[in-house]
Amino acid sequence: MISRTAAALLAGSPAIADAHFRAEAHPYHPELRPDGYVNLGTAENRLVWDLLAERIADRPPTTEQQTRYAPLHGTDELRDRIAGLLTRLLGAPVKGDQLVVVSGATSALDAVASSLCDPGDAIVVPAPYYGAFDTDLAGRSGAVLLPTPYAEPQALPEAVEDAVGRARRDGLRVRAVALSSPCNPTGRVYPAAVLDRLLEVAARHGVEVIADEVYAGSVFGAEPFASLAGRPGVHLVWGFAKDFGLPGLKAGVLHSTDPQVLAAARAFAYFAPVATDTQALLAWLLGDPDWVDGFLAEHRRRLGASYRAAAGLLDAAGIPHLPAQAGFSLWADLAAWLPAEDFAGERALWQDLLDRTRVSVLPGEVFHADRPGRFRICHTADPATVRTALTRLGAHLTTPTPRPEGRTR
Amino acid sequence: MISRTAAALLAGSPAIADAHFRAEAHPYHPELRPDGYVNLGTAENRLVWDLLAERIADRPPTTEQQTRYAPLHGTDELRDRIAGLLTRLLGAPVKGDQLVVVSGATSALDAVASSLCDPGDAIVVPAPYYGAFDTDLAGRSGAVLLPTPYAEPQALPEAVEDAVGRARRDGLRVRAVALSSPCNPTGRVYPAAVLDRLLEVAARHGVEVIADEVYAGSVFGAEPFASLAGRPGVHLVWGFAKDFGLPGLKAGVLHSTDPQVLAAARAFAYFAPVATDTQALLAWLLGDPDWVDGFLAEHRRRLGASYRAAAGLLDAAGIPHLPAQAGFSLWADLAAWLPAEDFAGERALWQDLLDRTRVSVLPGEVFHADRPGRFRICHTADPATVRTALTRLGAHLTTPTPRPEGRTR
Repeated sequence: MISRTAAALLAGSPAIADAHFRAEAHPYHPELRPDGYVNLGTAENRLVWDLLAERIADRPPTTEQQTRYAPLHGTDELRDRIAGLLTRLLGAPVKGDQLVVVSGATSALDAVASSLCDPGDAIVVPAPYYGAFDTDLAGRSGAVLLPTPYAEPQALPEAVEDAVGRARRDGLRVRAVALSSPCNPTGRVYPAAVLDRLLEVAARHGVEVIADEVYAGSVFGAEPFASLAGRPGVHLVWGFAKDFGLPGLKAGVLHSTDPQVLAAARAFAYFAPVATDTQALLAWLLGDPDWVDGFLAEHRRRLGASYRAAAGLLDAAGIPHLPAQAGFSLWADLAAWLPAEDFAGERALWQDLLDRTRVSVLPGEVFHADRPGRFRICHTADPATVRTALTRLGAHLTTPTPRPEGRTR
Repeated sequence: MISRTAAALLAGSPAIADAHFRAEAHPYHPELRPDGYVNLGTAENRLVWDLLAERIADRPPTTEQQTRYAPLHGTDELRDRIAGLLTRLLGAPVKGDQLVVVSGATSALDAVASSLCDPGDAIVVPAPYYGAFDTDLAGRSGAVLLPTPYAEPQALPEAVEDAVGRARRDGLRVRAVALSSPCNPTGRVYPAAVLDRLLEVAARHGVEVIADEVYAGSVFGAEPFASLAGRPGVHLVWGFAKDFGLPGLKAGVLHSTDPQVLAAARAFAYFAPVATDTQALLAWLLGDPDWVDGFLAEHRRRLGASYRAAAGLLDAAGIPHLPAQAGFSLWADLAAWLPAEDFAGERALWQDLLDRTRVSVLPGEVFHADRPGRFRICHTADPATVRTALTRLGAHLTTPTPRPEGRTR
C-alpha cells in the first residue's frame, strides 16, 4: 500500500511526459523509419545544438572541488552567473543570493508552491495553462489549482479577481496566482499593462504571484516582453531547458526577493539539488556573456523562422491558429474537425491524428482549454521533420473523408 | 507567511549540513591558515580522488542526446550499470528496472518515505542513527520518526519489536523501520543473523524495511557485510557519495522489488531528477567493471588504513571508542570529559572543542544517542590533516585543566 500523495501522483501522471516517451520510443526517420512517430508534442528546442556543441566540448575538466559537497541550492559561482544573465534577459536587477538552483523548473515550481501552500490551499491559474502545472505546483504541495479561463489578455486580471472571490466564498484559502509568461501553450506575450493590473489584483487580495518565465529568452514577436522579476510578491521561475535547449540538464532556478520564501525554497532544494559537475558546466556556458548574448540572439532568430515556417504550413492547409510572439508552439484550432463537440471528441481526434498521421501533438484538454478542439503543435524539432509532419497533418485534415461521426476509440 | 511543511523544515534544518558549511568556510591549511577549522564532522571520502581523476578526465564528450529529455528516474544505461555494480557489491541479483535514480541518497530516502507514509505515520529507527534521517525521511513525507535505542546489535530486533508495539498502543500507524547498514555513526556491520531476525519482526508486524546501504562498499573489518537487497519488504538506498567519494554529484538510487513502491518512487523522481550529463559521467565510470572493482578494493584498503591510524591516535590519547568495521567515522566516548552529565553538557563540550582545538566533530545528540558524551569523528579527510586534528583533540583532552564546570555557552 502506498501513501495518499503517491497514489494521487500516480493517478495524475503528467500526460505530457507520457505522450513524449510514447512518441520517442519509435521516432520517425526519413529513411530508417518513415512510418515512425513525429513528436510535435514536446516543447523541446532542437534548433540550437550546433551553437552549443562547440562551447560544451570546450568545458574545463572536472576538478576535485567539483565532486565535493557544495551548497545544495547552487554554488556561488553558478548563482552569480545566472543572476548576471537574468539581469540582462529580464531587464531587472537579479542577485545571486536571491536565487535557489534546483533540479529543473519543475522542482523550482514545486519548491515555491510547497513553500507557500498548505494542503488544500488554492492557486488560481489562468487557463489555458501549461498542463504539467497540475503536477509541478500541486503534486507534492497538496495545493488545489483553480483553472481560470479568460476571453482575451485584457480580461485576465479581472478573471483572476473573480476567481479569487469565488474561491474565498467557497471557503478556500487562496495563496497564489500562477502563470507562464510568455504563455505556454498560446505563445502570447502579455502586455505590460495587463501584468501591472494582475499585480494590483494580487496585491489587493494578499495573493502571491508565481511567474513561470522559462520562455523569457524565446520571444521573437513585436510585443515587448515584460518580466515580473523583482516586483513585490512575485516568485519567478526560469531554467535552462527552453532558452538554452538543454532540458536534459535539469537545472531550474527560483528568483524571489522575499527572505522567508527564499529560506523555505532553500530548505526544499535540499531534496532536489543539481550535481556540482553539471553546475560547473552551466557556469562555464554562462562564463562568457558575449557568447551567451550572441547565442540567445541566434536562438531567437531561428525560433522566429521556425514559427513562421510552421504557421505558413498551417495557413496553407486552412488550419486556424492564434498568432504567437514567443515560445515553441502554435495553438491551433481544430474544432471544425471534431467528431463530436466535446472533450471526448477531442480525444478521438487526437487519437485519429496519432494513428493516421503518426504525428504527436497535444490536445487542449491537457492545458485546461475551456472548449474542445485546441491543439498545441510544437515547431522546434528538426525543420525538415516539422515540414513533413505538418504537411501530413494538413493533407489528412483537408482530405474530404466522411466526417468520422460515431467513432468511439 | 510560509507553509507548515516549510516552517517545520526550517526549524529542523539538518545540523550536519550547518556544521559542515561553517567548518568549510575557514578551513585549516598547514601553511596558509594554521588556525583554520579541521572538518572531521562531515563523512566525506577524500581518500580516493587520485584514483578517480584519471578516469573522470577520460569521460567522452557530451552528446546532443545527453542534453535532451530522458526518463526522469534514470537512463536505461545508467540503471543497468548500477544494477550490475550492486549485484556484485551486495551479492544479490539487482535489475535495472528495479531501480529509481534520483538526485542523491537524500532524495531516494525522501522518495521511499513519501511513497510509504501519510503524514503522521511512524517509522521506527534504531538509535543512534544518521541524524539527517530526521529531514530525509520525515521532512517532506510528514512521517514521525521514533528513535529506538538498543544496548547491542543482538538486541536490535527485540528493541524494534517493542517500539512497534508501543507505537501501536499509542495509536500510531507504523509503516516502516529504517536503518543504515553498515551503521552510521557507529561503523558497525550488523551480523546476518541479527538482520534476519529484524526482517522476521518486520514481516510479522506488517512493517516495511528501509535499508540505507550507502556504505555497502566501505567495509574494511572482519565481520562480513550482509545486504538486505531483494529481501521481501525491503527498500534499499545506495549512492555515489560514500563508496565512490563523489558527494557533489548528487546521485542516489532506490532499489525495490515492490512494483507499487517502484511506481510511486518514479513519480517522486519527477521532482528530483539527475542531469543526463551527470548520468552519462556515472555510466562512464561504471562502464568498466574491472576498473570499478579495482577502485573499490583500493578504496577499502585505504579506508581500513585510515581507520586504524585514527583509532591508534585516539587509543594513544586514552579516548575510548567503539571498534568499527565499516564507514568513515569513529564513535568516540567523551563522557569522562563532560562538564555536566546531560546533553547541555555535551553541547558545551562540543563548543569548547570547536573553539579551543578548531576541530569540528559532531555530538551524539545529532544522532539521537541515548546518553550524552558520544561524538562522531570522521577520519576520511587528508591523512596528515586528520593526524593534526586528532593530535590537537587528544592534547586538549588530556591536558590537566580545571574541569570546566559551570561554563554556560
